[in-house]
Amino acid sequence: MAAEMALSHRAPREVLSEAELEEVAKRKPPTKPSLRGCLHKTRCSGSAAKSLLFRFLPFLRWMPRYPIKDWLLGDILSGFSVGIMHLPQGLAYALLAGLPPVTGLYSSFYPVFLYFFFGTSRHNSVGPLREVLVPTLISLPTLYPFSGPFAVISVMIGSLTESLVPSENFLESVNGSNATVNEELRDAARVELVATITVLTGIFQVALGLLQFGFVVTYLSDPLVRGYTTAASVHVLVSQLKNIFGVSQGENSGPLSLFVTVIDLCKKLPETNVGTLVTAIIAMVAILIVKELNHKFAAKLPMPIPIELITIIVSTGISYGVNLNDKFGISVVGNIPSGLKPPVAPNFSYFGQVAGNAFAIAVVGYAICISLGKIFALKHGYKVDSNQELIALGLCNFLGGFFQCFAISCSMSRSLVQESTGGNSQVAGVIASLVILVTILKIGELFRDLPKAILSAIIIVNLKGMFKQFSDLSSLWKSNKVDLLVWIVTFIATLLLNLDIGLAASVAFGLLTVIFRTQLPHYSILGRISDTDVYRDVVEYEMAQEVPGVKIFRSSSTIYFANVELYAEALKKKSGIDVDRLIEKKKKALKKLKKQQKKLEKEKAKRKKVLPPLQSPSLPQNAEDGPGLSVIELNVGESTTPSEPTLHSLGLPQPTFHAVILDFSPVSFVDTVSIKILKNIFRDFHEIEVDVFIASCSVSVLAQLERGNFFSSAITKHSFFPSVHDAVVHISRERQQASVDHSTRM
Amino acid sequence: MAAEMALSHRAPREVLSEAELEEVAKRKPPTKPSLRGCLHKTRCSGSAAKSLLFRFLPFLRWMPRYPIKDWLLGDILSGFSVGIMHLPQGLAYALLAGLPPVTGLYSSFYPVFLYFFFGTSRHNSVGPLREVLVPTLISLPTLYPFSGPFAVISVMIGSLTESLVPSENFLESVNGSNATVNEELRDAARVELVATITVLTGIFQVALGLLQFGFVVTYLSDPLVRGYTTAASVHVLVSQLKNIFGVSQGENSGPLSLFVTVIDLCKKLPETNVGTLVTAIIAMVAILIVKELNHKFAAKLPMPIPIELITIIVSTGISYGVNLNDKFGISVVGNIPSGLKPPVAPNFSYFGQVAGNAFAIAVVGYAICISLGKIFALKHGYKVDSNQELIALGLCNFLGGFFQCFAISCSMSRSLVQESTGGNSQVAGVIASLVILVTILKIGELFRDLPKAILSAIIIVNLKGMFKQFSDLSSLWKSNKVDLLVWIVTFIATLLLNLDIGLAASVAFGLLTVIFRTQLPHYSILGRISDTDVYRDVVEYEMAQEVPGVKIFRSSSTIYFANVELYAEALKKKSGIDVDRLIEKKKKALKKLKKQQKKLEKEKAKRKKVLPPLQSPSLPQNAEDGPGLSVIELNVGESTTPSEPTLHSLGLPQPTFHAVILDFSPVSFVDTVSIKILKNIFRDFHEIEVDVFIASCSVSVLAQLERGNFFSSAITKHSFFPSVHDAVVHISRERQQASVDHSTRM
Repeated sequence: MAAEMALSHRAPREVLSEAELEEVAKRKPPTKPSLRGCLHKTRCSGSAAKSLLFRFLPFLRWMPRYPIKDWLLGDILSGFSVGIMHLPQGLAYALLAGLPPVTGLYSSFYPVFLYFFFGTSRHNSVGPLREVLVPTLISLPTLYPFSGPFAVISVMIGSLTESLVPSENFLESVNGSNATVNEELRDAARVELVATITVLTGIFQVALGLLQFGFVVTYLSDPLVRGYTTAASVHVLVSQLKNIFGVSQGENSGPLSLFVTVIDLCKKLPETNVGTLVTAIIAMVAILIVKELNHKFAAKLPMPIPIELITIIVSTGISYGVNLNDKFGISVVGNIPSGLKPPVAPNFSYFGQVAGNAFAIAVVGYAICISLGKIFALKHGYKVDSNQELIALGLCNFLGGFFQCFAISCSMSRSLVQESTGGNSQVAGVIASLVILVTILKIGELFRDLPKAILSAIIIVNLKGMFKQFSDLSSLWKSNKVDLLVWIVTFIATLLLNLDIGLAASVAFGLLTVIFRTQLPHYSILGRISDTDVYRDVVEYEMAQEVPGVKIFRSSSTIYFANVELYAEALKKKSGIDVDRLIEKKKKALKKLKKQQKKLEKEKAKRKKVLPPLQSPSLPQNAEDGPGLSVIELNVGESTTPSEPTLHSLGLPQPTFHAVILDFSPVSFVDTVSIKILKNIFRDFHEIEVDVFIASCSVSVLAQLERGNFFSSAITKHSFFPSVHDAVVHISRERQQASVDHSTRM
Repeated sequence: MAAEMALSHRAPREVLSEAELEEVAKRKPPTKPSLRGCLHKTRCSGSAAKSLLFRFLPFLRWMPRYPIKDWLLGDILSGFSVGIMHLPQGLAYALLAGLPPVTGLYSSFYPVFLYFFFGTSRHNSVGPLREVLVPTLISLPTLYPFSGPFAVISVMIGSLTESLVPSENFLESVNGSNATVNEELRDAARVELVATITVLTGIFQVALGLLQFGFVVTYLSDPLVRGYTTAASVHVLVSQLKNIFGVSQGENSGPLSLFVTVIDLCKKLPETNVGTLVTAIIAMVAILIVKELNHKFAAKLPMPIPIELITIIVSTGISYGVNLNDKFGISVVGNIPSGLKPPVAPNFSYFGQVAGNAFAIAVVGYAICISLGKIFALKHGYKVDSNQELIALGLCNFLGGFFQCFAISCSMSRSLVQESTGGNSQVAGVIASLVILVTILKIGELFRDLPKAILSAIIIVNLKGMFKQFSDLSSLWKSNKVDLLVWIVTFIATLLLNLDIGLAASVAFGLLTVIFRTQLPHYSILGRISDTDVYRDVVEYEMAQEVPGVKIFRSSSTIYFANVELYAEALKKKSGIDVDRLIEKKKKALKKLKKQQKKLEKEKAKRKKVLPPLQSPSLPQNAEDGPGLSVIELNVGESTTPSEPTLHSLGLPQPTFHAVILDFSPVSFVDTVSIKILKNIFRDFHEIEVDVFIASCSVSVLAQLERGNFFSSAITKHSFFPSVHDAVVHISRERQQASVDHSTRM
């Protein structure tokens, strides 16, 4: 209780400078430079083999503790509905990627199955079951339509397949007249290419994960990710328009390809296949309405109505019955082979050709995966182990590539079931993938008459959630302009430069905003809030009053090479006098004085010495302490050789203040440039008889200043104070002392 | 005096939260968002035509006030010695650029003459004469050999001329047998090319200057510039080795070309021309020794011995007398036409081809110029107007290009005379250029027998000062490891990627270090230094003791999207308990409790109600205030339906502290991501019955939090305190109050 009592009022303690504080508080000698420490931090500590195994195969940890009784039923139900829901989406992704539909089913099966084993766990410590599972089991009705970003990867692959293996390469004249595309050969070539890309993507991701490069995701800020995914959705939308309108269109790649595609499409609009367009519109309207109902009655429905599945079944039926393909020229999915295929090795000859694209896909896929994870993490308050996530994703892709899968972004989209369906764990994912497996084995072939426009409609409707992100614009406008800028720049860059280069540009811009923010800080002069020890910006607080004779200066940001010159400039400007000008004048006046002195001395030498010139050296020391002005003033009249004449004695205007306090609380590090400029500040103000003090300097900055040889006989830790108030009290005491000395001397 | 007395001790004032402070200190309503303000800051204010004229032609300001009597003589003397010194260097630069020697003389004449008119002035206000002149008149013996960086530009041009206009294009078989190069035609083509590059460079520089892009130089930190110029010197050295060894060698360009050149040279070493090598070595030794003497006796010599001039005169004489060219195959400079040439228009057909390189040269040239300026500025305490400097340089290049000059980096190298020679102003520069003019008109042609090896020797010796910068390595190792890293990365990147891409990579890395520094901050728990209101890291200060029941947490850096997750993580880790785990347990226990309650209620419903369930709602409010734990504790025993059960009542371990204070003094801005995470921190700690307070939050951050909807009914400004001590006092009072309440209730 005594301790608490002591806290409850301000102890009228002695003023402490940093130098005194170090003694009183027994500061330990500064530890070794932090670079090694930083490296050490990021290095993985030697963990036991078991924990390593648990780390790379997290399911080993939670599987034995799986509460079969409580969770299994829910997981099975949930798995079924997820599997059914994702069947149409799997087909749709294949369409996006320019591949035969069955590969979409493969991609829906293998990686999910694999992810079950490698999926990330929350901490390395053995946490409770729910926590371990959380990353792969997130349920949020508003975030359900996550096919968007998954589709992004498919689109990236699609642009690659169609440019590297164009249909034109497989033209053959069947009856000597009309050249048709040998689709079988073409698709085989494309599948091989994509499998190679997928394997390579996996290799890149595992490598990055092992190199602990997962930290790069910290650069993907929330507004950046949302801007990016919104722009990606636009790309997906545009890529599907040709199927909606039923026109054939070549693929464009590279920057600005989006606009080329749109213009191209507009030109071809007259060729629109009305049947296809009508089919697509009907499907979209139906899906939209039912999804809205699902959302509205989410609480009452045991599981959402699988409208997408219903749509493809109904439309396949109609298509088969009416023979839409032949009658109206509506293009359909085509043959879907049944059964799994044995694993095949990727074609290594493609490696060189697609390495760049595979890297882009690896990064984008990972970025999407982890950034979705981050959205959930923010909402649910858990963390994603980004390196493990990267390795898991990479392994899924690597292994999946051998089974003709295409690169997946993240199996998260798969786990996005509503909690209402009762899914509790990754087991639900496994069950869902088994549903897909059955489809591949038995049911798939029935969908050969499914119109492609239906799949496009499903893709487009699922983008709705992504496009809702445009509302960020108004909320960011209100809350944070810089984040708004990041959102917009990311969106535009991704639209213009496509998904790979656009991401790089956006990240660079995001980081630059941090630099800009520190480069354009808010400089202010602080004043004391009456009768407190609180000092605030005199512009913002009416009651804040400048301490007479003391300028308290504060920058809102840290000080480093890119802004330290602005800092010094702002300080001199805010102090209200032209410091440099004054110094210049002083130097001139000193030169004049010297000349005069030389003359005088010569004259004196003639007349013999009257005063010993060694009398004065004690004075400048006094002047250094600050308030000794008046003392020197007195002497000037008598002695003609004061070794350090004051501004006053030189007939120059004196500054209206005698001390400057730099509030260093926002300074988080200093570099060699800022140390140099700081030294200059001390030197310049000393020239015009103003003392400089630094307040609230953090210990780590103090240590950096020490290492950077900041301290000298002229600048000591006695100029450093733990708070602004300490410095102010110190200055006023010194001043009082000086005036007492003065009056006693008088 | 009364005000000062009040300052001199701590007023035992009331504890103020931010909310109370706003009222007491009358905070003005937050001003409009700063983005517009930031834009406004960088925009040029509408200044009068006269000041604009003065700004672009600074000489108008200082010329009328030029003190002819005092300065003219010194300027003339200085100008002469500078002119004489730079004659050999002009020839040498031409050699570097792969151009006929006379263009080097042109480049030494025109731009300097022009720079006299456009050269930057210190401030826009009319300053004293010396200040206006300072940027072009700096004298520092140690910085004298500045031909290094000037040579960098020449080298960049050289690699371009030799790759775009290779000698092979001008082979002609004179006597039908041996193909020789028609040097005249080749040189004419090269001069035209370089003139075009120079004009284009000038255009780029003026454009950048007018667009106010001069600020980019703030990204060139001191270590970066020194690492860059050191690497550039290596490039220059390597480019000259072929002349020293007298072997002929093609030019390589692009990344890694340095190593290709070195390897190529090593292969050709057997073909070394011994005569050339010996000549070069003798010249180098002689120049080195005399320069050393110059340096040693700088005070005694009226002007430094112009050893370079002497060397070229002597060697030309010997070469002419002995006919070195014919006898030993030592290659000589060749014909130097006398007289000036009329201006010619650049060849626009080259524009497209060299635009990229011209831009690189524009940026590098400006970067070198301004960074040298920064070195001086740091030493002499003045500032360089970077936009004006950019425009001046651009105009010099633009106009110079018409007179067959090649792009210059900065005429600064020219003004680098020792003050001992008496140069006071830019007038000295004009005189020096007149000396060069005379050389061009009359003397130049005499140097036709000057061996090229001598010029290379001069270039190499002048690099000495640059190579001395290697000593930065040891001093940076001691003072600042991060800056050391920047130095090394810049050096290596520039060596590997050449001067253009290397610079871009280095700047990017330099900026990334700022990001890394903020991303790897030092997290600490603060403790109170006994009997003071100073709080310091408990690890670093022995006497710092944690306040019982209160965790005070501080990060050394600001908080933004890239590090806020680490911040939250570190906070939870440093607090000593597994917060997430505890929350998880609480939720589980709550679930269990609910089940039990349901059971109980059912039983009760059977037995009829005994206690009205509406009694408890007043309690949770109490619990929110912080120290109400014990109150609820009491009730738990009696009432079976407390609507918010405590950890204790649930049988869970309670945290050892009841409050967390976040020291926000280093936080300089917040973005939407950090606001979200901060909200999560408040929520999580509230879950485990710990109150969160924020101390020392700056006003601008407070305003950003307001705009970002941080405050709600759960988080108010009453949780914000101007200092850590205020928060601690507030907490202990609340605690006392609660225990008093408790005991009275007892």
